[in-house]
Amino acid sequence: MTAVTHQHPTLKALAAPGDEEVAQLDAWWRANNYLTVGQIYLRGNPLLKEPLTAEHIKPRLLGHWGTSPGLSLIYAHVSRLIRLTGQEAIYLAGPGHGGPALVAAGYLEGTYSEIYPDVTLDEPGLLRLFRQFSSPGGIPSHVSVTTPGSIHEGGELGYVLVHAYGAVMDNPDLLAVAVVGDGEAETGPLEGSWKGVSFINPARDGAVLPILHLNDAKIAGPTVLGRKSRDEVRSLLAGHGYDVIEVEGSDLPGMHHRFAAALAEAYGRIRAIQRSARDGDWDGTRPTWPLIVLRSPKGWTGPEKVDGITVSGTWRSHQVPLSGVRENPDHLRVLEEWLRSYRPEELFDESGAPSRSIREFAPDGDLRMSASPHANGGRLTRDLDLPDYRDYAIDVPTPATVRAESTRKLGELMRDIYTRNPDRFRLFCPDETNSNRLGAVFEVSDRGFMEHVTADDTAIGRDGRVMEVLSEHNCHGWLEGYNLTGRHGMFATYEAFAMVSASQTVQHGKWLQEAAHLPWRAKVPSLNILLTSTAWRNDHNGFSHQGPGLIQVVLNQRGTVSRVYLPPDANTLLSVANHCFRSRSYVNLIVIDKQPQLQWLTMDEAIEHTARGAGIWDWAGTDAGDSDPDIVLACAGDVVTMETVAAAQILKEKLPGFKVRVVNVVNLMTLTRPKDHPHGMSETQFTELFTDTVDVVFAFHGYPGAIHQLVHGRPDADRFRVRGFIEEGTTTTPFDMTVRNRASRYHLVMDAINNAKRLPRGATALKEWCEAQLTRHQEYVVEHLEDMPEVRDWSLGDWAERG
Amino acid sequence: MTAVTHQHPTLKALAAPGDEEVAQLDAWWRANNYLTVGQIYLRGNPLLKEPLTAEHIKPRLLGHWGTSPGLSLIYAHVSRLIRLTGQEAIYLAGPGHGGPALVAAGYLEGTYSEIYPDVTLDEPGLLRLFRQFSSPGGIPSHVSVTTPGSIHEGGELGYVLVHAYGAVMDNPDLLAVAVVGDGEAETGPLEGSWKGVSFINPARDGAVLPILHLNDAKIAGPTVLGRKSRDEVRSLLAGHGYDVIEVEGSDLPGMHHRFAAALAEAYGRIRAIQRSARDGDWDGTRPTWPLIVLRSPKGWTGPEKVDGITVSGTWRSHQVPLSGVRENPDHLRVLEEWLRSYRPEELFDESGAPSRSIREFAPDGDLRMSASPHANGGRLTRDLDLPDYRDYAIDVPTPATVRAESTRKLGELMRDIYTRNPDRFRLFCPDETNSNRLGAVFEVSDRGFMEHVTADDTAIGRDGRVMEVLSEHNCHGWLEGYNLTGRHGMFATYEAFAMVSASQTVQHGKWLQEAAHLPWRAKVPSLNILLTSTAWRNDHNGFSHQGPGLIQVVLNQRGTVSRVYLPPDANTLLSVANHCFRSRSYVNLIVIDKQPQLQWLTMDEAIEHTARGAGIWDWAGTDAGDSDPDIVLACAGDVVTMETVAAAQILKEKLPGFKVRVVNVVNLMTLTRPKDHPHGMSETQFTELFTDTVDVVFAFHGYPGAIHQLVHGRPDADRFRVRGFIEEGTTTTPFDMTVRNRASRYHLVMDAINNAKRLPRGATALKEWCEAQLTRHQEYVVEHLEDMPEVRDWSLGDWAERG
Repeated sequence: MTAVTHQHPTLKALAAPGDEEVAQLDAWWRANNYLTVGQIYLRGNPLLKEPLTAEHIKPRLLGHWGTSPGLSLIYAHVSRLIRLTGQEAIYLAGPGHGGPALVAAGYLEGTYSEIYPDVTLDEPGLLRLFRQFSSPGGIPSHVSVTTPGSIHEGGELGYVLVHAYGAVMDNPDLLAVAVVGDGEAETGPLEGSWKGVSFINPARDGAVLPILHLNDAKIAGPTVLGRKSRDEVRSLLAGHGYDVIEVEGSDLPGMHHRFAAALAEAYGRIRAIQRSARDGDWDGTRPTWPLIVLRSPKGWTGPEKVDGITVSGTWRSHQVPLSGVRENPDHLRVLEEWLRSYRPEELFDESGAPSRSIREFAPDGDLRMSASPHANGGRLTRDLDLPDYRDYAIDVPTPATVRAESTRKLGELMRDIYTRNPDRFRLFCPDETNSNRLGAVFEVSDRGFMEHVTADDTAIGRDGRVMEVLSEHNCHGWLEGYNLTGRHGMFATYEAFAMVSASQTVQHGKWLQEAAHLPWRAKVPSLNILLTSTAWRNDHNGFSHQGPGLIQVVLNQRGTVSRVYLPPDANTLLSVANHCFRSRSYVNLIVIDKQPQLQWLTMDEAIEHTARGAGIWDWAGTDAGDSDPDIVLACAGDVVTMETVAAAQILKEKLPGFKVRVVNVVNLMTLTRPKDHPHGMSETQFTELFTDTVDVVFAFHGYPGAIHQLVHGRPDADRFRVRGFIEEGTTTTPFDMTVRNRASRYHLVMDAINNAKRLPRGATALKEWCEAQLTRHQEYVVEHLEDMPEVRDWSLGDWAERG
Repeated sequence: MTAVTHQHPTLKALAAPGDEEVAQLDAWWRANNYLTVGQIYLRGNPLLKEPLTAEHIKPRLLGHWGTSPGLSLIYAHVSRLIRLTGQEAIYLAGPGHGGPALVAAGYLEGTYSEIYPDVTLDEPGLLRLFRQFSSPGGIPSHVSVTTPGSIHEGGELGYVLVHAYGAVMDNPDLLAVAVVGDGEAETGPLEGSWKGVSFINPARDGAVLPILHLNDAKIAGPTVLGRKSRDEVRSLLAGHGYDVIEVEGSDLPGMHHRFAAALAEAYGRIRAIQRSARDGDWDGTRPTWPLIVLRSPKGWTGPEKVDGITVSGTWRSHQVPLSGVRENPDHLRVLEEWLRSYRPEELFDESGAPSRSIREFAPDGDLRMSASPHANGGRLTRDLDLPDYRDYAIDVPTPATVRAESTRKLGELMRDIYTRNPDRFRLFCPDETNSNRLGAVFEVSDRGFMEHVTADDTAIGRDGRVMEVLSEHNCHGWLEGYNLTGRHGMFATYEAFAMVSASQTVQHGKWLQEAAHLPWRAKVPSLNILLTSTAWRNDHNGFSHQGPGLIQVVLNQRGTVSRVYLPPDANTLLSVANHCFRSRSYVNLIVIDKQPQLQWLTMDEAIEHTARGAGIWDWAGTDAGDSDPDIVLACAGDVVTMETVAAAQILKEKLPGFKVRVVNVVNLMTLTRPKDHPHGMSETQFTELFTDTVDVVFAFHGYPGAIHQLVHGRPDADRFRVRGFIEEGTTTTPFDMTVRNRASRYHLVMDAINNAKRLPRGATALKEWCEAQLTRHQEYVVEHLEDMPEVRDWSLGDWAERG
């Protein structure tokens, strides 16, 4: 490809910094490296105004040096690009353990002191910067929520590109510079995320500039990409769809010149792609976006050898290249030489502040990457323009008479959200939008796809904004990037396969938990997760498709972020979804099946039920409410709610006089004590629903243990008998699933009888009848091997037909 | 590359089947396709001996047709290869929803009837085969545990290559044919698994032949690789290190000729690589292994158009291309034509059995891929030759006097397991073997790596058998493949990042749960998972590295497979590990920290403790055992055990006369009721440990809810007050972690006092003293910002120094 950098004066200037500019770049880089080493080693003498002694050294040396100089070199050059072009950019550090380099950048740019006023731009501030690093009560050694300018935690590896691609969607003016480490590049999620390029529309979205930083080693050995031939690496990245620009070496100032030229070239190509797409002379084919491969030594500018062994350029400089510095005078000497090699006296003034030229190197205000509002997306968040969710209500004249696919209503709601919010709402789903009955969105938006489409394809194309890719990691991660830059969305996926991205749910939850402690981090739209193909209804899929594990994952997060909703029908779902779309900084998990299901509540009832989170369904039980019932049948989750209502009906008809109360829980967190979760209902409310002595038979959508965990500490929690998914599954009907997991209406009736304090006449006979029903069911399954009756035993009344 | 297929007569024959052979191939393929369509549609008239009517059609049509004909074409050709060469091979179907094709293959090869005698090789058997498919009480629609010849569940996508690569490690004579679907190819785990090629040694390991089957579409739309340019796909795969052979089309018999030639070429190159490596003229560089890209239409040989809309070759044939067949006479006619197009009368004899020529097409006995013992690895499993684990014991003269890194001992044990079992044991770890203190294994084995190594690298090279790659998905999946083919191993990883592969743990657990029901599946070595960098000890990493979520994931599996161990010290760890290495078909989760920690038990005590799973530590408490104590302090997990023992010591010294019992739990499942888990202790044993009325303060390594879940149903379970990880984390000392999570010795003492039935004199003062200690701690943290004292507050006695 011909260089684009002579085509425009700014690009030309960018590509060829003069000597003075290179000196500035280098000074900033040295300052950053100095601060990085200082953070790892120093507790005193931060400016080396006196000779270094053992007392100046931290008692315990922690941190990662190896990747840091590469990260800061890139940061310096991108900052210069921003200054020369005015480009809005954010920086995502895939090798996030290079935390000190990013902290140093925020400090040199002044942002750090703005948000953490204790860390002043002078010698005491410098000392504080050093001492807080990797210390109790201080900051983590990784890029984290506390790092200004970050939307990407440097902990669990693999998500830097998904965050970057999510950040630039519908963000046409944003450039996301995403540094991929060669350790991270070994992970599955990262390898699966290069394909983001197949989904980015240059006319509407911003650009990601991936920089694959190969420094050859991870903690203890070489990396695959670091040791593959250059040809293979180029071929791999070209195969993903990138236009590879390579920079390699360690010579100075040569590397500054070469990296500046490469960055200018990459930027020029990005702008050319965007201009062509936006000015209308684009043929619609996917651009080949530029990507930089930077090969620089691990621990670059650090000690070459320690005790005669090569350190710089090897895995030995991954963490702390010089150990035992307090005890070993030789190491102390090497450290001092290393620190002084950056010439701190040129970089900081007498007060200890970065010198004027260093400070002036930073772009202005919000253009500083450490201060970008895109990396503190709450600052840019605008509420969704939401239609009135009540307009999508299903008419429910009486409970259990209407059958509907509840998620279809949510699809219609989201269709109109798409229309009203063309710049700030997206649905992310692994290839199941239609299957999940959310297909109404396709009336207003195609799926986004930048590869070739054909006449046989439907609802797909470059202008689409519904994101489908068969990768939970991409879908989840893109939505995180989209959320953290201030936009709204929903991730809809298979319940069982939500565990594929469970660690992303965990890590994003941790991000939100931490952010809640930082006043400068504005709240962002919540991460909304919808699970619609559930454990109980996988009629033709097998046991592998049956797993409600994500509920437990979200339950274990802090109450400040975790929300779990199990709406039993469409109107409740609409009310819950409306709440989730309005909320901020939560992980909202919504679980509801996509198949036709009985509808229980009118819209008004649903609104009230959702607001309370749990309530007594008078119409379903026989409990007059004036005294305690004989048993409480509680439920959370659509399929088990059906079984619970059916069980209550059986009891009503077959055991007149036996008082059954039916309680449905839609907001799982209401079960928790208020001290454990803000949604936890008061003990009074809890007792009003569940009494404080009557046994409760609780039919739960997920693993039964979750309910035991939630009701712990409630009055006589031992009285809760929970039925739920106990890992009994196969290809079968939903009713058979409830039988296998001992949560069918018949099991619930028997549980009710077994646990009721008062046993009315007929109870024994009813138990026998239930046993007989289950035997009949079993015989039926064996006899009718190939039948998969969708409805049989799958409504309120059918039990009677066969009773 | 020059074709290798003229170099050897067998290859030559393989590459160029004669007309009769092509006819045989095609007949077998037609038979397979016929059975596939039959499984999806038919409940009667299985051989089309009469005209098809609505009654012959299943009431509900479920299954996936689209990928099946491609899967069966490949199967047919590989079977022929096996017949001609005698090669041992297994078949892994990445697009596992092509289940009916693999079931059909096992049926045509006779294996199905051998293991499921009800499914006979005649018309009734055929009907049973059809009716059981995707039916309650039958088999799932996906390739599953029930499918003979499979080690790969076709449910959650992404793991076909990791399973294949794991299967061939130390299996020099095995060829694993791994079909990758283009939907699956979009997942992160799959994209991250191409790099298996960088870890396979042709001299010692078998070979994987990946076949990327591009049929362009997934459920509802096109795929990225299906729609990328051929150049980019080739470039991508070449970049991963493969030698790409392409076959494309739908013409017959042309495709048979071309695929046979491609397969022969690929096989020839594999054998040439292996011969060169094994005969000694190999220079040690990584071979470029062949890979086939097969482009064939989705739903190939199915109906071209339905109701005027193109189906074959599009996403519309992904599942059931013809719907409403019972109701729509036109669809019924199309189905009959489709079925008859395979000419069943030529393929099955009068009895309904596959014709002789079809049956003779299969390789002999165990060479049939559906009967391969490698795919029923329990048949090949040999016990590990284990050294006596007691030889690695740490000498513990009295409790809490010796400090050691417990996992180092496990490393020594594994070192000697490596030596004694050079062909059937491997450790898999994402780059942390040394960091996890397991580095002793490097005394006898390098890390395995086939890319370039340099003089600065240590313990790495092509002969290495310790597997390190920075990908939990690869490590976990390779071990699964290794286990399922009958070999033993261990996956050691960061506790928090175990959630990255949590869904693999779930899915492998499901596989083992299902296999337990199938008598023909021999038990395989257990999946052993060791978590060593735990939530409580991530001194320099942040909150992102703190998450004990995997415990909960394993707890939710069925008792037949789930095992969770929390050994508190080295000797207990050795005893637990020894048990795990001997066990079969479990998921064994072991959690223990890698840092220096106090040692409690002698080897003999550890053996007894492990055998019981939980026990009273008399020496730690003040409970004479003659009557109930005032409080029970229980613990599970190393760090919290330390705090518990320290709390008991404080109570002993400061509240003489107050009776404290200390119970340590090493096998978490013993807490469960026996009816819920086979390890569950009897109620008598439970009461002996925990009494049935005294309050229990339980300090737990994981999320507290897990204990509430486990002790549910035990006498007065409400009396358990659990402290554990409550998502309070940051970069800090382990002691500070216990303070933040309210599980420190001081919190436990206060909990003990608050919950004891009898309050002795001095209790109030002691509570105040505890509060004061916590305040001092807080002040200390603030004052000593940069200190990270490794030991302070981190032993039994230190509290006294500052008390």
